[in-house]
Amino acid sequence: MLKLNIHGSDGCPTPFYYYDMALLRRTLDAALEARPSDAYHIHYAVKANNNPVILREIASRGFDADCVSGGEIRQAVEAGFAPGSIVLAGVGKGDDEIEYALTIGIGCLNVESEAELQIIDEIAARMGVKAPVALRINPDIDAHTHHYITTGLEEDKFGIDRRLLDRAVSYCLASDNIDLVGLHFHIGSQILTMAPFEILCDRINKFVSHLKEQGVTLRTINVGGGLGVDYDDPDTNPIPDFKAFFDAISHNLKLEPGQRCLCELGRSLVAQCGSLITRVRYVKEGIDHKYVIVDAGMNDLIRPALYQAHHLIQNLTSESVHTDLYDVVGPICESSDCFGKNERLPITHRGDILAIRTAGAYGETMASQYNSRPLPRSVFAD
Amino acid sequence: MLKLNIHGSDGCPTPFYYYDMALLRRTLDAALEARPSDAYHIHYAVKANNNPVILREIASRGFDADCVSGGEIRQAVEAGFAPGSIVLAGVGKGDDEIEYALTIGIGCLNVESEAELQIIDEIAARMGVKAPVALRINPDIDAHTHHYITTGLEEDKFGIDRRLLDRAVSYCLASDNIDLVGLHFHIGSQILTMAPFEILCDRINKFVSHLKEQGVTLRTINVGGGLGVDYDDPDTNPIPDFKAFFDAISHNLKLEPGQRCLCELGRSLVAQCGSLITRVRYVKEGIDHKYVIVDAGMNDLIRPALYQAHHLIQNLTSESVHTDLYDVVGPICESSDCFGKNERLPITHRGDILAIRTAGAYGETMASQYNSRPLPRSVFAD
Repeated sequence: MLKLNIHGSDGCPTPFYYYDMALLRRTLDAALEARPSDAYHIHYAVKANNNPVILREIASRGFDADCVSGGEIRQAVEAGFAPGSIVLAGVGKGDDEIEYALTIGIGCLNVESEAELQIIDEIAARMGVKAPVALRINPDIDAHTHHYITTGLEEDKFGIDRRLLDRAVSYCLASDNIDLVGLHFHIGSQILTMAPFEILCDRINKFVSHLKEQGVTLRTINVGGGLGVDYDDPDTNPIPDFKAFFDAISHNLKLEPGQRCLCELGRSLVAQCGSLITRVRYVKEGIDHKYVIVDAGMNDLIRPALYQAHHLIQNLTSESVHTDLYDVVGPICESSDCFGKNERLPITHRGDILAIRTAGAYGETMASQYNSRPLPRSVFAD
Repeated sequence: MLKLNIHGSDGCPTPFYYYDMALLRRTLDAALEARPSDAYHIHYAVKANNNPVILREIASRGFDADCVSGGEIRQAVEAGFAPGSIVLAGVGKGDDEIEYALTIGIGCLNVESEAELQIIDEIAARMGVKAPVALRINPDIDAHTHHYITTGLEEDKFGIDRRLLDRAVSYCLASDNIDLVGLHFHIGSQILTMAPFEILCDRINKFVSHLKEQGVTLRTINVGGGLGVDYDDPDTNPIPDFKAFFDAISHNLKLEPGQRCLCELGRSLVAQCGSLITRVRYVKEGIDHKYVIVDAGMNDLIRPALYQAHHLIQNLTSESVHTDLYDVVGPICESSDCFGKNERLPITHRGDILAIRTAGAYGETMASQYNSRPLPRSVFAD
């Protein structure tokens, strides 16, 4: 059960995101310690949570950053990430974003198409710089053979088709304005078994050896992210199994001497430290159903509505030993504004405080002002 | 085909919402003219689009307003809606929102539960005012008999169970602080056949006559909203068939002399006047597939990702007489950031301007800054 550690929490208006900074630090330390060697670099995926306080904490621990927009690069630099330690990913980088990235000396641009490669080439030429580039390859891991990879084949818009890799590499080598530093992969998210990462490494080894045969050496192999968290039981498993993740990579990826392995962890670093704290406005008793109507809505946390995701809900204030089944819903005028159906909670009353757990990733960062509601606040506890 | 009517549109950075204000006015006029008599009042559902320019235009035409939060009431009042012409709906009204509504002399609170009724009673007593209240009844229209009503039975969180109506009415009549002014209904949205509205009116007549037998007379019957728009062919059908809607209501609802009928139109008033204008950043040619990657993303327009909605996409600048099939996707790092699969468009190039049509409702109002992107701008044309 989450314990709020706030001075004067009664005065803090709900809803708000509550961040357990001590847990964040323990999680970050666990991730760093699980690395097989200094050749492994963790780039924090800023899109998971771009709250400046969270970003500063992660930057101060010596992580690198993975950004997907000019706005994210700006926030990362402001938070203390060194520009050279940032990679810029994304299928649709704007010219202004590419220019900005090259101006500040970004570590690498992960390139997703030949069309993008040409634009980067042109911009770098105009600026008189050499653009550091990693080619993102769609590894085409078959979801039918490996059912736990659900996003593999849907991510068609991402990456360069593996059959077009040679052409893209040739383009890079022929250009005076492009420095081909490595390859980039990403197979999905919220992956809890290690087999997909093992399969990925096996696939990567083939690409790398194929390029080596042609005399192309790569300085970085970016295996992407995707490590999942326990949404069902955050109290038992507050820290993901980073050791298993890095073992799966290091036991299967054939890293050459001097080659670095980059990985992009986002959700696994920040999801468990955050909870959405909300107050019960009404308990509505129908004839067949009971509803707990809270003051947080889908505008504050859209994952349940958008991805049919389920977050554990805890009543932090009820002292009842009896329980009941409730639908926990928000105040937004949409049926999709529902955090959980038939949730077993201790007898719940108006005024009770609920925690919607594991909301540190893709929570605050996706919030909107739909229904003219204010953006949720954030509170940090040590 | 949409024609942009902007001076110096080259200088207007994409993406942006483009509002055809002349079409908005024609639509508003058509809705007003379609009313059977002055007994019919149209409350604009602010949640569909709360852009201040749009709100001011609608307020200036003599519409009333339907709000779902204190923030929306504030915006409505600022835009010129008279407080007494505003109704406040929503399953989870905050105490501060109820107080604010009563302070400014709101027209009516649509109440969705007995629990809420008690809180309104308490607040009104404390303030020494009488709260004008309409009871929202869940009419329980069966989606199985009428498959075109898809939200009817899912909206469980909304409204008072019809079997609890008598108790709620008794509560109102016994309270010194509550003025029971009417009943409120809402059966769903994007409804394009009139039969559901006819069924609703039939159901309403039974409720009203049941209450009349007990000596309860009602001043207002709020039939809600739900009238749909043509997402497939906005150029042929820019203005919804308000006449058919009001005919369905007025031919079936037995309105007593002196009784007013309120309806809550949102989408049908504003959807067609708005388009999301976006620029093509890359045309990515794979081996099996072609992708048009635009600079608008799901953070700007979330309906395709959230509701699997499809908006017509037009290329406003291509002069090609040949066409091809493209997936039109945004730059956000999610597979769900896709505006259309296998869209037939004239041969499309980097730099082309696309219009994502029928985006005036639930577009800008749901935008977020996900991926640290700026909120979309808005441009108004006459």
